[in-house]
Amino acid sequence: MTPSHNAQSSSRSCLAIVLAAGEGTRMKSARPKVLHQVANRSMLGHVLATLAQAGATSTAVVIGPDCEDVAKEVQKISSQARIFVQKDRLGTAHAVLSARESLAQPADDVIIAFGDTPLILPETFTKLRAPLAEGAAVVAMGFEAKDPTGYGRFITEGNELLAIREHRDASEVERLITLCNGGLMAIRGDLALTLLDRVENKNAKGEYYLTDIVEIARSLGHRMAIAVVSEEEVHGVNDRAQLAAAERMIQDRLRQAAMASGVTLIAPETVFFSHDTRLGQDVVVEPHVVFGPGVVVEEGAVIHSFSHLEGAQIASAAGVGPFARLRPGAAIGPKAKVGNFVEIKNTELGAGAKVSHLTYLGDASVGAEANIGAGTITCNYDGFAKHRTEIGEGAFIGSNSSLVAPISIGKGAFVGSGSVITENIPDDALGLGRGRQTIKEGWAILFRDKAQAAKRK
Amino acid sequence: MTPSHNAQSSSRSCLAIVLAAGEGTRMKSARPKVLHQVANRSMLGHVLATLAQAGATSTAVVIGPDCEDVAKEVQKISSQARIFVQKDRLGTAHAVLSARESLAQPADDVIIAFGDTPLILPETFTKLRAPLAEGAAVVAMGFEAKDPTGYGRFITEGNELLAIREHRDASEVERLITLCNGGLMAIRGDLALTLLDRVENKNAKGEYYLTDIVEIARSLGHRMAIAVVSEEEVHGVNDRAQLAAAERMIQDRLRQAAMASGVTLIAPETVFFSHDTRLGQDVVVEPHVVFGPGVVVEEGAVIHSFSHLEGAQIASAAGVGPFARLRPGAAIGPKAKVGNFVEIKNTELGAGAKVSHLTYLGDASVGAEANIGAGTITCNYDGFAKHRTEIGEGAFIGSNSSLVAPISIGKGAFVGSGSVITENIPDDALGLGRGRQTIKEGWAILFRDKAQAAKRK
Amino acid sequence: MTPSHNAQSSSRSCLAIVLAAGEGTRMKSARPKVLHQVANRSMLGHVLATLAQAGATSTAVVIGPDCEDVAKEVQKISSQARIFVQKDRLGTAHAVLSARESLAQPADDVIIAFGDTPLILPETFTKLRAPLAEGAAVVAMGFEAKDPTGYGRFITEGNELLAIREHRDASEVERLITLCNGGLMAIRGDLALTLLDRVENKNAKGEYYLTDIVEIARSLGHRMAIAVVSEEEVHGVNDRAQLAAAERMIQDRLRQAAMASGVTLIAPETVFFSHDTRLGQDVVVEPHVVFGPGVVVEEGAVIHSFSHLEGAQIASAAGVGPFARLRPGAAIGPKAKVGNFVEIKNTELGAGAKVSHLTYLGDASVGAEANIGAGTITCNYDGFAKHRTEIGEGAFIGSNSSLVAPISIGKGAFVGSGSVITENIPDDALGLGRGRQTIKEGWAILFRDKAQAAKRK
Repeated sequence: MTPSHNAQSSSRSCLAIVLAAGEGTRMKSARPKVLHQVANRSMLGHVLATLAQAGATSTAVVIGPDCEDVAKEVQKISSQARIFVQKDRLGTAHAVLSARESLAQPADDVIIAFGDTPLILPETFTKLRAPLAEGAAVVAMGFEAKDPTGYGRFITEGNELLAIREHRDASEVERLITLCNGGLMAIRGDLALTLLDRVENKNAKGEYYLTDIVEIARSLGHRMAIAVVSEEEVHGVNDRAQLAAAERMIQDRLRQAAMASGVTLIAPETVFFSHDTRLGQDVVVEPHVVFGPGVVVEEGAVIHSFSHLEGAQIASAAGVGPFARLRPGAAIGPKAKVGNFVEIKNTELGAGAKVSHLTYLGDASVGAEANIGAGTITCNYDGFAKHRTEIGEGAFIGSNSSLVAPISIGKGAFVGSGSVITENIPDDALGLGRGRQTIKEGWAILFRDKAQAAKRK
Repeated sequence: MTPSHNAQSSSRSCLAIVLAAGEGTRMKSARPKVLHQVANRSMLGHVLATLAQAGATSTAVVIGPDCEDVAKEVQKISSQARIFVQKDRLGTAHAVLSARESLAQPADDVIIAFGDTPLILPETFTKLRAPLAEGAAVVAMGFEAKDPTGYGRFITEGNELLAIREHRDASEVERLITLCNGGLMAIRGDLALTLLDRVENKNAKGEYYLTDIVEIARSLGHRMAIAVVSEEEVHGVNDRAQLAAAERMIQDRLRQAAMASGVTLIAPETVFFSHDTRLGQDVVVEPHVVFGPGVVVEEGAVIHSFSHLEGAQIASAAGVGPFARLRPGAAIGPKAKVGNFVEIKNTELGAGAKVSHLTYLGDASVGAEANIGAGTITCNYDGFAKHRTEIGEGAFIGSNSSLVAPISIGKGAFVGSGSVITENIPDDALGLGRGRQTIKEGWAILFRDKAQAAKRK
Repeated sequence: MTPSHNAQSSSRSCLAIVLAAGEGTRMKSARPKVLHQVANRSMLGHVLATLAQAGATSTAVVIGPDCEDVAKEVQKISSQARIFVQKDRLGTAHAVLSARESLAQPADDVIIAFGDTPLILPETFTKLRAPLAEGAAVVAMGFEAKDPTGYGRFITEGNELLAIREHRDASEVERLITLCNGGLMAIRGDLALTLLDRVENKNAKGEYYLTDIVEIARSLGHRMAIAVVSEEEVHGVNDRAQLAAAERMIQDRLRQAAMASGVTLIAPETVFFSHDTRLGQDVVVEPHVVFGPGVVVEEGAVIHSFSHLEGAQIASAAGVGPFARLRPGAAIGPKAKVGNFVEIKNTELGAGAKVSHLTYLGDASVGAEANIGAGTITCNYDGFAKHRTEIGEGAFIGSNSSLVAPISIGKGAFVGSGSVITENIPDDALGLGRGRQTIKEGWAILFRDKAQAAKRK
């Protein structure tokens, strides 16, 4: 459901430098800021994936010191990316220059992106780069701010960008400007190091600001360009409320995309997708459903309320829930039914099979049209290893049975209700494993008398 | 909770023609558009039910070719309705004329309604018809559009409607008009065929437009009238996002009506009703609850979070959930309690009975004050037929028991925990059916050694 | 997460009179209005708790006749509060005078508060009292109304309050005033009785209005002051829709406070807190979670979707849910895991212990690193009394077992899957209690033939 983008097949090479070294103290978190997630992927992961879609030919990520977790995430998402550590946090230009080795290699375009703006779209990077091909030296990304307070303002003359003025340095008239700095920049590759090396730190904070290259480039006679993006796309995340806002925006995108593709979301605001959820036409998702990563739902399947799916495949016309939990490796066959209070993990369910209630299936395969009774448990773990359960086509597992794996139940076989099954059952056989019933007449009368007498004491 | 409407007991007969033949291609669905549901009833079903409430004396539904499902839905909701097939889709007037046979019969008023506007209220149809009784030939339904772009505009002179101008044909001045065409029309029955037969298809699309009858009627010297309705009521559904918007609006109505009648909805936006949900005074519905069709909850009952109810009756002061699933035929007695991870289907639960946890009761009856232990399963299905379980008043079913139906547990009887019960238990008796416990001292030490050795290999 | 407030350590004593006698007929409820809850505490409870935080030195609550439940709630929240019954409902001043005995005792400041405005913050009471210390006789609390229709208007001259004009008595010009009466008042203690006794009931309704003391005090030459508060804080609750609105506002406060303290709420609008929920830094709460009263979650724990917690302690880095129900007395140890369809009540779970699926643990203690298999049930109730289950460190309870309490499972012991355990198991032993399995070859073929033959009949 991710909006697709065919990267303009540009002949120009492109180095993307992603700044991901910010401390994020306002997050109040032991976790580095860029690893906080939206739609079940780290913010940094979103930016890296978007850059790949946008046709970046090489990537450099600038991370803070002691951030092995960030380095791992980079490698997971983008194995060819180079990682640079910014030892001291001396400003954005300083951060970019941490990737000096990458900058020293020839690339037609250089993009500066940020690890905490997960909403950016691939076509926006394409738009940002476009003016470089037409001769601009630097392209700055602006947005029309609803409330510009706090943002750097774009000082322009016609279409020409003269400078980016920080809020605190802006005059009263300049503060009326609503076209603000979105942070992203594109720089001509052959000029990037020259411009960056001229940035100075003669300011109140003693930091090297990336925005200074606008005036530097102009002073060298270069042409500056502006690209404009929606405020939403450059929404940056600095605290948990902004993280929740980013989540809401990305969920809204995913919901709109699902509905546009022919999926019914009865109450879109109560359904939560992962970045990679894939839903076929005429899928219906009822209110209150959560999709973890890696879920594919095929045409016409219905996901009922209060279901939680992760790493699961649901084939066409299957029914899941309400109150179903599908965990990684669950593969639900066509027209199969998974009912309430059922957990399925690492298990294939054949076409038309039914697991209607209060069941745990783990490390199992269930044949087509088999019926798994209420309260069935695959006892797949012995405290040390996991074992498999094989249930044949058309088998009928009586309610409240325990299937002690490794175990095999044959095709068309029956298991008597309440059995503990420890030995394989051949095709078409009945397996029973339960105590014989006894009845003690009048027992309850005595018990009640005794219990009430005990209470009186 | 549906807002009630006493149809003005008019002496005038009324034919309602419902147009339900639209293809709905923007829905991207194998299902005909008018069968998509809001509040668990098809959009067409809503319109038909509303027309019946509004006092329509006969109904004709115009459906597309190869739409047996639509015909079935019409018959389900309104068995006396006549169904007409529009073979070619040549415009709204052409669609209305598909019901020529109905139009040829005498009716004082003719209403034209649409199968994809499920939010219309019965009093609106009454308002639409009123001017006919006062001599108007045609009444057109308008609404004040927040953004009129795309809608037909009402060209008026004083209170008189001169014409309905399509957006594309409107002048710049006309486009400033915000009173727009809501689609619904009422026509004097004796004029309807005359007017409709004069509609021509001399326009860009070569279609017969219903709106043309305004100018035709005027040219014949008839008086036109306007009725005005809120934009919400004429919200039409053409894609899944509009379907979700219709759902939201109808849910908001149902929630407001529930609260106005003395129901507490702690978080109304997380509670989803069906069109026919009925809730008594001082019912409390906690956050995150879904009501399927056919639910009645009586005074003072509490529906806890994460509950899913369908076709269920809940008596006064009962408690349901959290995490309860009530399916059709569940009848929960006064002050009875249904707890977490419990599914109840086709089962009466007596007054004060308790089913607190992890239980499936299907095709059963449970006496008053009985206690059903955690993990109890009624084994009601043998792979071919369903069987009943009868549990007497004050019985106590020990935890994790399997009751293999058909089976009867007497009044005041006990079932020992973990039993499989296959024979009836008399009143006040104890039934036990489980293996005898054995203990193997030191077994775990050997097992762990072996398992760890196996792992080392 | 309640925003903390250090009551200004004022040397002035303060009597708070809380009016809680309103009938609340628009609630359509058998329950007195002030006992309806927001964030799982009665509205009256919120006001009393806030007054205590604000430094009230004595409290009087005026309740209606036959309202024992209200009296009980007062005693529960604020045992030293005095309760007065207003026998006839003759207006707000009459209600205040029902507490004449309290007013007759010396207090520097008197606050009049209302039992149906649960959103008021302690600092607002402090602000309301402040002008008294500077010589004002009466302080009225105003707010800027978005829509002032229906509210009393503050008639002012400069900073001076001249009168409070009811909407119906206001001139057209006065109706343009948007500074409206929020109801709350502070009165100099030595003047309170004097002023209140002069209020007359010469008005259309024949009631004694508290607002009249403004003009009375002025006529006696006293200085009046105004304090101003947000409209949200004085939101009063008169029907269920306003109750839902109050709930939404208080939930938004609790959510913002949680996020500001370093908690991730993926979808804040789907998470419902109680007034006293406490969450540590880096706690993650997934979508769709409900917190009942008395929950503490420590640093780094994750509460997965569809979880319902009440009276539970969750230690650091523990994982709960999805689909977990924690009831009062659940104490989840560090790094312990509670999985889906698990209910835990009055049970300590040791560090690193796992209860992954479909389990009920009641009145139990589980040692560190123990593993409780799917479908395990503690049979803690025999119909009359509750009994305890003790499970030792590192024990392994096989799936679908029934532990019949009182029972003890030793350290490192194993229970075989599907067992009913009725006798204690020593450390490191294996306990088994299940029937032996038998197999009937070909049984299913005969059964199917028979069942199908029966169906054909």
